[in-house]
Order: sequence, then C-alpha cells, then structure tokens
Amino acid sequence: MKMYFSPSSPYVRKCLIVAHELGLQDRIEKLPASAHPVHRDRAILADNPLGQVPTLVTDDGQVLYDSRVICEYLDALAQGGLFPQEAPLRFAALTQQALADGMLAGSLLARYEDTARPEPLRWADWRAGQLDKAATGLRWMEQHAGQLEAHWHIGTIALACALGYLDFRFADWAWRAQAPRVADWFAGVSERPSLAATLPPRA
Amino acid sequence: MKMYFSPSSPYVRKCLIVAHELGLQDRIEKLPASAHPVHRDRAILADNPLGQVPTLVTDDGQVLYDSRVICEYLDALAQGGLFPQEAPLRFAALTQQALADGMLAGSLLARYEDTARPEPLRWADWRAGQLDKAATGLRWMEQHAGQLEAHWHIGTIALACALGYLDFRFADWAWRAQAPRVADWFAGVSERPSLAATLPPRA
Repeated sequence: MKMYFSPSSPYVRKCLIVAHELGLQDRIEKLPASAHPVHRDRAILADNPLGQVPTLVTDDGQVLYDSRVICEYLDALAQGGLFPQEAPLRFAALTQQALADGMLAGSLLARYEDTARPEPLRWADWRAGQLDKAATGLRWMEQHAGQLEAHWHIGTIALACALGYLDFRFADWAWRAQAPRVADWFAGVSERPSLAATLPPRA
Repeated sequence: MKMYFSPSSPYVRKCLIVAHELGLQDRIEKLPASAHPVHRDRAILADNPLGQVPTLVTDDGQVLYDSRVICEYLDALAQGGLFPQEAPLRFAALTQQALADGMLAGSLLARYEDTARPEPLRWADWRAGQLDKAATGLRWMEQHAGQLEAHWHIGTIALACALGYLDFRFADWAWRAQAPRVADWFAGVSERPSLAATLPPRA
C-alpha cells in the first residue's frame, strides 16, 4: 500500500497508529506530500480530488480517503477489532472519533488562521470559536473519562491524536490543568509503541 | 429519536435523505438549532461538545454525531443496506461519502468567508482554494459518472447533497455546463421523494 503522507498531519497520525496497532506499518509506503488549503498539491490531486492527506492507494489500486475510511479499511484488512461491530459500542466509538476529528478540524482552522492567513486578515472571533471546539471537547472527555479508560478502539485512538495535536501546535495551552483525569489517561496510552513511533516532529 | 436540525445544513439533509429512504423520517423529532462557527449554540453543546448539527439523540438516549455516524446508525436500525457491507464496494461508497463531505466542507468554508467573516478580513485565495475542492470533486464525478449511475448508496446520496448545496448557495456557478453527465444523473435522482422532501429553503 502507499499513503500520501505528512509527518505533521494528525489525521495521518491516526492512520499510522492504527497501522502500528494492527502490525501493518511496514506494508505502507509513505509518499511525501504537501497538502495545503490554498496551494493545492497536484500530486495528491491526481488520486484524490480533495488534495488532502492521508490518501491511501491499496495493493489493488483502490484509492481510499479520508482518515476514517482508511482506518476502517486497515482494520478490516487485519481483522483487527479496533472498530467494534455491534451497537451501542460501535456508535459510541464512531462518535468519539467524530468528536476527535471535530476537535482537530477546529484546531487546524485556528492554526491556519495563525499561520497561513496574512496577518491583517485574521479574525480573532473565528480563531476563538474554532479552538473552543477543542476546549469543549476536552471538557466532555474529562466528564466521561471512564469511557476513555474502558476501551482502546478507533474512538480513543482518535481522541489521543487530538490531544497529541494540542501538544504539538498549541503547547502554550496547559490543557492538563483543566483535565487531570484525561491527562493521566493520555500519559498511559502515550507509552504504547504505536503512539511513540508516530510522534510529530518537534515544532 | 430527536435530531438537532437546521434546514440549510447539507449534512443534516444527508441524514434526512437517508431517513426517508429507510422509511424512518416520521420517527425523528426535529429540534431547531442555530449552529454557527463563532456564536456557538449552547443547546447543542449540552449534548454535543462540537456544537454542530446534525446531532441525534436515540430512543435509548445515546448521543450520536456527526452525519456519517448518524447515517450508519439509521441504516443499521432499519437494516437498510445503504452502507454496503463488503469490500471493495463498501470502501468505494465510504470514499465517495468522504469526497462529498470534503466538497461540502470546502464550500461551507467559502460560504463563511463570504458571509460570516467581516468584509475587510476576507482572503480571496482561501475562498478560492476551498471552493476548488468542489470543482475538482465535480471533475472527478464527471470522469467517474458510471460509478454514480451504478449505485444508490451512502456515497451517491452524499454526492447528491453536495450538488444540492452548490445549487442552494452557489447558484451563480453553472456547474452543469462543466459536468453534463453528472447533471443528467443529478436530474434523475432529484426526482426521488427523499430528495424532493428535503430541499433546502429558497435562499
């Protein structure tokens, strides 16, 4: 398999963590890519009209995206069980993944506001509203920490990626003080080889 | 079931089309909501920390989001078959849905740039890059129109929602001239009762 890849993308990281958990990491060839919201990557666009990472090309030549689809594919390929099959656990896990992806989407939009957009065109209210998705998500996680501690599946993997992205791009935000139980959980899962092997580069 | 709802959200529309296709539409009570990227809706936030529509509360009280999770839940509830179970069709359908959701995400960000952001802070390159996701997606659809014509599942439903959103919010974009085969396909599926019953209000 081949994956259009960026070492700083939290959605790529989610797929790589899943691959590591399933023992598939050595079967994925990483294709360097430079996805960007304004300067679109023509190499990715040839396979994925959204021009986004991660994009996976399977050994059969099927092109799959986005990260949710790739993770489910890898799990099915390895018969891994990271996607629970039965309700209500399946839908709880998928909703946790949606929460994590939404926290990340807001964080990425805040990051674009800070770095990609020309300074005179930045809008503080937009940045605050987007980053607040991560804050209200974090509060939910603290209130439901028992759900994090009870399962290791696509939902909790995705939530760990969201926390890792806060550490990577918003290191000044001392989120652990606001969510001590989440912080304990994250410290534990961060020791997993899948997370350690996929840390983003130093900012 | 109850769903936090906005008549102009294309992601809500996707869920309602799925509900109509499955005969579940009368079992969903619609809760009016006003999701907004800056002025966050506190009513939704009580159930969904992302503050977004659609959010579904099941009869058992489980809170589900986002639209992908809700659609899969409704399909499982009705044993509907709108989510193919076997690879490679399942992953083709899910990737089409991801394409549609990405086209919509770009279109919505372009729309926010045009309407929510104060005029002096607008960035034309950002708007163009986001809306180009819909344009490159449309090009892919024209090149793969046979895939649209072959199946009616979550992927093609989502793509129909993306086209409907272009008509709703970007009516000046004469996309049909660029994608005549897609236009024919869309004209056909638009006659389905599920699409006709869920049209957005006149802009």
